Amino acid sequence: MPRSGEDARRRLQDAALELYLERGYDATTTAAIAARAGVNHRTFFRHFPDKREVLFGGEDDLRREIEDSLLSAPAEQATAEVLLRAFVASAHVLEDNRESGIARLQLIAATPALQERDLAKGATITASIAAALERRGEPTDIANLAAAVGWATFHRAASDWIDDPARSLEQYLRSSFHALADFAGPLRSLSP
Amino acid sequence: MPRSGEDARRRLQDAALELYLERGYDATTTAAIAARAGVNHRTFFRHFPDKREVLFGGEDDLRREIEDSLLSAPAEQATAEVLLRAFVASAHVLEDNRESGIARLQLIAATPALQERDLAKGATITASIAAALERRGEPTDIANLAAAVGWATFHRAASDWIDDPARSLEQYLRSSFHALADFAGPLRSLSP
Repeated sequence: MPRSGEDARRRLQDAALELYLERGYDATTTAAIAARAGVNHRTFFRHFPDKREVLFGGEDDLRREIEDSLLSAPAEQATAEVLLRAFVASAHVLEDNRESGIARLQLIAATPALQERDLAKGATITASIAAALERRGEPTDIANLAAAVGWATFHRAASDWIDDPARSLEQYLRSSFHALADFAGPLRSLSP
Repeated sequence: MPRSGEDARRRLQDAALELYLERGYDATTTAAIAARAGVNHRTFFRHFPDKREVLFGGEDDLRREIEDSLLSAPAEQATAEVLLRAFVASAHVLEDNRESGIARLQLIAATPALQERDLAKGATITASIAAALERRGEPTDIANLAAAVGWATFHRAASDWIDDPARSLEQYLRSSFHALADFAGPLRSLSP
């Protein structure tokens, strides 16, 4: 997409978030979003299928960054370490957009239709992580489990970072993965 | 609820699933579900707020069983073990309803409106697990992480069991929790 296309996309995302917060999600139309962004109404639909998706474009960037990092990791690294490194490498996607990220999360928390979409996006990212781990040679069941558990851990770290930015997202990620190891450790002594 | 109320509730759930599979979810009305179940249309709304919720009543049973088991576990047990035991203790909710559970999952997989509701129900169960772990004395961040990771692991085990019933759900749960320990083990050697 040419530079002007990227600019329009970002302006539409910013305008949508502003209007949703000002007027509420239900009362905002795609036409109003396009007008606020200073683009033609048709341009809206070149970038997004509907007014829900305009809020979730950033998660595609996150998914791609995580996937790229997983697929370029050294073959000998343990899966959990590969996942932690991929999450750390893509943390900037969230950190670069902290302000709008917080506004977006507040809006999602207040809008059931968006909450469910948010969960569905999480499921898409989990599936993409599982597919990347399979390409690294993990058996399907282990890839699915690692992806689900890894994404749950990432999500917790991101929530903690949104609540309290005193530490970086990377620090929250490292603590969460350590807490995961502490949590899972006692399971090793159970009978199989 | 008196016994006849429980019977009507179960008949409504069975009738809804049958009709969704026969006619499709969109083409089925609450009136048709009540008629198939042999109850008054008003009875439908005494049990369920809408035609989506009629499919998700079983998850409330699952949530309650998990919660009861978590809250009655010995204080000295490790959190991961408490979770595994709670999942094993409540596995019968799924095992008692395997046939309708499979039909239900196929329907959900084919119906986006139901997929999103399914994910939202998972979020509700996760929140309820986290609250129970906090009542056991876990700090909030650890309770949230353990609940999210534990539920993701349960969900994987249940999917594997649906795909291949050669092993019991309990066996899948034990393998998944073992796989979780193997996955998380290498994180212990990373710097904090």
